[in-house]
Amino acid sequence: MLEELKQQVLEANLDLPKYGLVTFTWGNVSGYDKESGLMVIKPSGVPYEELKADDLVVLDLEGNIVEGDLKPSSDTPTHRLLYQKFPGIGGVVHTHSPWATSWAQAGKGIPALGTTQADYFYGTIPCTRRMTKEEVTGDYEWETGNVIVETFKDIDPLQIPSVLVHSHAPFNWGKDPHEALHNAVVLEEVAKMALHTYQINPHAQDMDQFLLDKHYLRKHGANAYYGQDKK
Amino acid sequence: MLEELKQQVLEANLDLPKYGLVTFTWGNVSGYDKESGLMVIKPSGVPYEELKADDLVVLDLEGNIVEGDLKPSSDTPTHRLLYQKFPGIGGVVHTHSPWATSWAQAGKGIPALGTTQADYFYGTIPCTRRMTKEEVTGDYEWETGNVIVETFKDIDPLQIPSVLVHSHAPFNWGKDPHEALHNAVVLEEVAKMALHTYQINPHAQDMDQFLLDKHYLRKHGANAYYGQDKK
Amino acid sequence: MLEELKQQVLEANLDLPKYGLVTFTWGNVSGYDKESGLMVIKPSGVPYEELKADDLVVLDLEGNIVEGDLKPSSDTPTHRLLYQKFPGIGGVVHTHSPWATSWAQAGKGIPALGTTQADYFYGTIPCTRRMTKEEVTGDYEWETGNVIVETFKDIDPLQIPSVLVHSHAPFNWGKDPHEALHNAVVLEEVAKMALHTYQINPHAQDMDQFLLDKHYLRKHGANAYYGQDKK
Amino acid sequence: MLEELKQQVLEANLDLPKYGLVTFTWGNVSGYDKESGLMVIKPSGVPYEELKADDLVVLDLEGNIVEGDLKPSSDTPTHRLLYQKFPGIGGVVHTHSPWATSWAQAGKGIPALGTTQADYFYGTIPCTRRMTKEEVTGDYEWETGNVIVETFKDIDPLQIPSVLVHSHAPFNWGKDPHEALHNAVVLEEVAKMALHTYQINPHAQDMDQFLLDKHYLRKHGANAYYGQDKK
Repeated sequence: MLEELKQQVLEANLDLPKYGLVTFTWGNVSGYDKESGLMVIKPSGVPYEELKADDLVVLDLEGNIVEGDLKPSSDTPTHRLLYQKFPGIGGVVHTHSPWATSWAQAGKGIPALGTTQADYFYGTIPCTRRMTKEEVTGDYEWETGNVIVETFKDIDPLQIPSVLVHSHAPFNWGKDPHEALHNAVVLEEVAKMALHTYQINPHAQDMDQFLLDKHYLRKHGANAYYGQDKK
Repeated sequence: MLEELKQQVLEANLDLPKYGLVTFTWGNVSGYDKESGLMVIKPSGVPYEELKADDLVVLDLEGNIVEGDLKPSSDTPTHRLLYQKFPGIGGVVHTHSPWATSWAQAGKGIPALGTTQADYFYGTIPCTRRMTKEEVTGDYEWETGNVIVETFKDIDPLQIPSVLVHSHAPFNWGKDPHEALHNAVVLEEVAKMALHTYQINPHAQDMDQFLLDKHYLRKHGANAYYGQDKK
Repeated sequence: MLEELKQQVLEANLDLPKYGLVTFTWGNVSGYDKESGLMVIKPSGVPYEELKADDLVVLDLEGNIVEGDLKPSSDTPTHRLLYQKFPGIGGVVHTHSPWATSWAQAGKGIPALGTTQADYFYGTIPCTRRMTKEEVTGDYEWETGNVIVETFKDIDPLQIPSVLVHSHAPFNWGKDPHEALHNAVVLEEVAKMALHTYQINPHAQDMDQFLLDKHYLRKHGANAYYGQDKK
Repeated sequence: MLEELKQQVLEANLDLPKYGLVTFTWGNVSGYDKESGLMVIKPSGVPYEELKADDLVVLDLEGNIVEGDLKPSSDTPTHRLLYQKFPGIGGVVHTHSPWATSWAQAGKGIPALGTTQADYFYGTIPCTRRMTKEEVTGDYEWETGNVIVETFKDIDPLQIPSVLVHSHAPFNWGKDPHEALHNAVVLEEVAKMALHTYQINPHAQDMDQFLLDKHYLRKHGANAYYGQDKK
């Protein structure tokens, strides 16, 4: 069942330590199959080096386990809600990657300071508000998804494929698990550079809107001209 | 004698360079066997790459060597005192890991700024006071243990399994050598992120208490639900 | 055609990840053959691990493709203009290396603070002005070259072989692709050290002009005495 | 001739990249044989990966080459002067290791902030004054040695085995090349931690003198008790 998606989810989970995004088991990747309405996610607390495709858990978006012997990641409800609310995404990556997590702990979004960010994110990568006591003591992981969705009420999640959850860490997404992972790597890189930029120049200004447009749109959308033509 | 514990202590010592926690021989791990009342510790000044299980030293908690041809780590009295005073711990790890040591040199505890810390530490990781001249010129390594114990007079050491010794470096502990090492890795990661958090936002506030409760308690204690069920 | 230059360009492209200068495909190297007036450049968006000499694209300096099945790097017009305007250079390297990019995002040149920089750069490594809306929405990559050339109107590009493009990232050059890459590595190192220097001492002064002269000139020009004599 | 010393100098040179102390050829190690009055040093500009024992140059302390076909390191006069003026040292290591070099560029010595430094350095690691125009335009590398010696007029070089040369980089020494290299590694580590310490707490105070005494003297001198007893 969903063998190809499982393989993608497995590979993206194994890429987490490869790209230096996780310590121990501090991260998880899921993938979503639009046709069947099912998602595949890492089991909770299993080390990456031991992870096999058969360990992955298959669920529907209501959280019913369809296949798998292990408990899914404790962050599964957050993943489910993102698939429900952000149409068009097919992969979600959660990490505690240290530079992005530092911005999340600081409660600050990452402004677009240069073309590295503009190539992937069409503006500031936002940070959620703090979650309330009711949200945290209630259905916490589900409410984490809700506060992310609230943060994107005026933002297109396909144009800004990452968020910083306040006092927690980033979630990233993309059209498939591989692209979500790719965005997680970019996020970490721009998070690092943004801090250093402000350390070099505390009055650094955001990049110009027309430069942001240029770089984002030369890689995304109808007029993109970066990379080789898709056959 | 204590072959299994020796193996654990050896592996945890070898993990110190693997996780980037030590330069040269700047770290040591011990393990404690409650039943026999004996501890196993790294010998002093032996490089990790040469370390063998037979090099490890077995002592009782009064410091009498029971087995081993080499001198135990010069920090042995600190380890002994921690086993005496912190019931329930079975492993101690001392390192000079650079981010945590920078906090120790700054004389500051590491506040709980996000869920990464909350998953392992139920609050601020404290820094001891400066040691007095009498303590330093007296039985120094034993007094290092005493100043740690004093720091925890109102803190449960099982809930905050690390400490920063002022002008020195961290000590970490856990139910066994492996868990103590695990905590040492987490400490280094949260020490790094806490500094960057304050650099991004000098007015960053601690995480909310209810979020700290949520994350700590979903991994520890009777109602934990993270990871796979223990068989 | 230009097999030796292709090999040099290939090797310098492969050195980008080796020296930690790039994430994913965020960089490109070209080489220029003065005799034929042709340049060789990386194709757009091809991962380094898959890159072969046959994938490289050969163009003239007006941008006409002479050989190659793939689209050249989207930054090709910038490379072309540099070869046209900076006589004597035979290699260009563009990266988003994180320390140098942070200076570019901060909009600041990197002053000569020590002999590491002086051994390769005869003074401050400049940052361009912000590009205008007309430049960005016009022939963007060509105008990127123009703003670099404008920045060097009073600077000898052979003596300062790198530039930071504002809100973007560095370009580096040299007598061949290998030397351009070498300069890109040095730039990243001095960018990192310059930030840390100011963090240690916000009032740090530039190095003395006579020390800059000494170090630059003991490695460059007629009286150089560093390294082994060239046979 | 001096085959054992050559082997030591070769190994210490090869350790420079291994410990992350150098980029390209930015460092050199020499060793001194007191009996013969001869020193062995790395040739100028030869990459470490190509370096062989036979490439090393043997000189007397007046700079006369006794053996070797290659030009010695351009820093040779600095090494020679240190051997002349600092009796008891048998190895010198020069690097541009980035954290220590940042302190050198900032023109600041590294105060003793914790026991990591105290285990190897009996106090502040000093930075020289800026060199004068006369010194730089004169016999530069020899004068670099003189300004180091001047800096140590009230400091025992055996107790503080490193120096930061203003606007340049560190020199380190020890009883042999291996110990000099060891000190270079420690210097880099304490340079990094000292910056971070001040970033965490801009008002951080030096460690107490009695703690400095304790740590330095438990590893050095007649009453040392760290490590295994020397047979």
